Amino acid sequence: MEKFDFYIPTRVLFGPGKLDELAAAKLPGQKALIVTTAGKSVKKYGYLDRVVELLKKNHGTQSVVFDKVLPNPLLSHVREAAALCRAEGCDFVVGLGGGSPIDSAKAIALAAANEGDYWDYVEGGKKPAGALPVIAITTTAGTGTEADPWTVITHDETRHKVGFGCDELFPVLSVVDPELMLSVPPQLTAFQGFDAFFHASEGYLASVATPVSDALALQSMRLLSIYLPRAVADGSDLEARTNVALANTLSGMVESTSCCISEHSLEHAMSGLYPDLPHGAGLIMISLAYYRHFAPLAPARFIEMARNIGADLSCMREEDKPYVFVESLRELQHACGVDNLKMSDYGIRREDFPRLVQLARNAMGGLFGLDPAPLTDADIIRIFEESYK
Amino acid sequence: MEKFDFYIPTRVLFGPGKLDELAAAKLPGQKALIVTTAGKSVKKYGYLDRVVELLKKNHGTQSVVFDKVLPNPLLSHVREAAALCRAEGCDFVVGLGGGSPIDSAKAIALAAANEGDYWDYVEGGKKPAGALPVIAITTTAGTGTEADPWTVITHDETRHKVGFGCDELFPVLSVVDPELMLSVPPQLTAFQGFDAFFHASEGYLASVATPVSDALALQSMRLLSIYLPRAVADGSDLEARTNVALANTLSGMVESTSCCISEHSLEHAMSGLYPDLPHGAGLIMISLAYYRHFAPLAPARFIEMARNIGADLSCMREEDKPYVFVESLRELQHACGVDNLKMSDYGIRREDFPRLVQLARNAMGGLFGLDPAPLTDADIIRIFEESYK
Repeated sequence: MEKFDFYIPTRVLFGPGKLDELAAAKLPGQKALIVTTAGKSVKKYGYLDRVVELLKKNHGTQSVVFDKVLPNPLLSHVREAAALCRAEGCDFVVGLGGGSPIDSAKAIALAAANEGDYWDYVEGGKKPAGALPVIAITTTAGTGTEADPWTVITHDETRHKVGFGCDELFPVLSVVDPELMLSVPPQLTAFQGFDAFFHASEGYLASVATPVSDALALQSMRLLSIYLPRAVADGSDLEARTNVALANTLSGMVESTSCCISEHSLEHAMSGLYPDLPHGAGLIMISLAYYRHFAPLAPARFIEMARNIGADLSCMREEDKPYVFVESLRELQHACGVDNLKMSDYGIRREDFPRLVQLARNAMGGLFGLDPAPLTDADIIRIFEESYK
Repeated sequence: MEKFDFYIPTRVLFGPGKLDELAAAKLPGQKALIVTTAGKSVKKYGYLDRVVELLKKNHGTQSVVFDKVLPNPLLSHVREAAALCRAEGCDFVVGLGGGSPIDSAKAIALAAANEGDYWDYVEGGKKPAGALPVIAITTTAGTGTEADPWTVITHDETRHKVGFGCDELFPVLSVVDPELMLSVPPQLTAFQGFDAFFHASEGYLASVATPVSDALALQSMRLLSIYLPRAVADGSDLEARTNVALANTLSGMVESTSCCISEHSLEHAMSGLYPDLPHGAGLIMISLAYYRHFAPLAPARFIEMARNIGADLSCMREEDKPYVFVESLRELQHACGVDNLKMSDYGIRREDFPRLVQLARNAMGGLFGLDPAPLTDADIIRIFEESYK
């Protein structure tokens, strides 16, 4: 067994109604910058007002709102919000919403606490001297960012969409209240749920997986295989939402104890080039071909994943067993109504494939090194070809 | 699903050779009080000298040694070491050894940072204002204390053996290096391994279990069922030692996310009254009768535990399935050479049973409230009776 470090210092308040505890929780500062999306739902459903009020109840904690974050968060907004944070004298950052505002909150917390430009730390190799404390309040179940130190920001000009992280970017507090997720529409629920699923499955296949990440990953996949179809079919099913939310938080812990592999590199290339493509949708599109490729190369892991999500592998030839996971995945995608996504619907053309290979190798090339077996450019092209509709 | 909080802020450095990283790790202070046992092994095998040297290499960090801790650590030693810590101006505490010195290190860290007597916080209801930071370096795999906020100290006069904990008592850093465990003798390896096993099984059966603690508990039991017999049979088997060490750390995380149940109350009463009885041995003695009692009261959980440790439950009557776990446990104890422990060998008499019931209810009575079903005094007496040899 390899050596590893375990470190997830985040305090997670989990469960229906937990948001109310924000009024009594120990806060890491006196004045919050609340970072949220440009979308309408956090206002429409009253989440933003509730957070402002709960902070106020908590020893009169003041807050300032930055509400411009886009689904693929931009560097320009990180810069703007960090300047606002400094100008207003905020001493902690609250990310409210899905992965985008929480990732942005982390980036802003780092940018506000350090000299120079945020991107100097991401691609320039500069070492940050800490960050403002971050609180994450999730309204979707898809990225696990509430339980990991990672943030993905896109450079406005180069379109590089790069993951970055350091210990200081673990949220000090994360509130995962599935009641805030009841309003997420079915398709988005499915996209985000599969993002969580692939964080777990990739983390389980990664060469840096450990028995700790394995336990978390298997539990995450198991919960999603049972509850994601229910949460998609009936968004008001609080039990399903709760279990999907938990699976997502667990997959964030997998991100903190293992790592994604190249499936995420391929998808980041796709949605980097076509920003309208939701990250989860891109992952789903390539997933069957991707896992079919790796099934015979890591058979024991694939068999365990299949068993874990309820497949019956008795009376089956040994060489067929690893592929059962791919079939289970296909069934799960069918059950969630996302088995027929088309790359072409989002503008992707077959001619883009070589460029996508390049982008994947450039922006998140390191993840290829964690794959269960080497993936050649020809393999990637074949995965894209097999996935193309 | 109930609501829950997840919080395990400890950084765990895990794996063979990891102790060396202490020379470069970020330390929480400038001068350490190293707390270790009165036993010989940490000196004989050079662990204490190595820790002193590694700290010195790390920016010249100074240390003072307190080496009087007994297997059942005493309040008087906590008081004495806390006074030494203050007098020497130590600003963090290193626990080196098994559960006893690490638990002591936590108690000393609290006592040194607060006014008044340590016991005022344990049984007097006083609230501590923080604690000195603690580093845990384990040389056994048995209590999981390196990944939880708990410490068990015995009052010299009243013989009350009481568990206590608060967020500040999570170690900030834990080094779990199985190379330091190669010298643990076979029987002690088995006693400690079963302590870890029962932390996991009790945490899995507790009414406060969550899907997070479940994942950690099942993985812990699975690893122990495979590797504990190997580690007992051949102490130099590093792969087995490593997996047992990991299972133990996982069971500590179970302690941090779920809780022990009354099995631990019963045993604390036993070893409280007969201090020569090793904690793990006491647990083993009562375990078969204890789990047989609860098997029909939580059948689904017992079936999952049995499956998880490799039992084949096919072609079996539904009402028999929950008892398979008890049989698996019996086999595991046989494989580890601890299936024939006798209470009478440690001085326990049948006449003690009513007093043991009383002690269990008094000192750790709260755990009974977490059992899968109410346990009456008559039930406890019957468990003791069935266990008596």
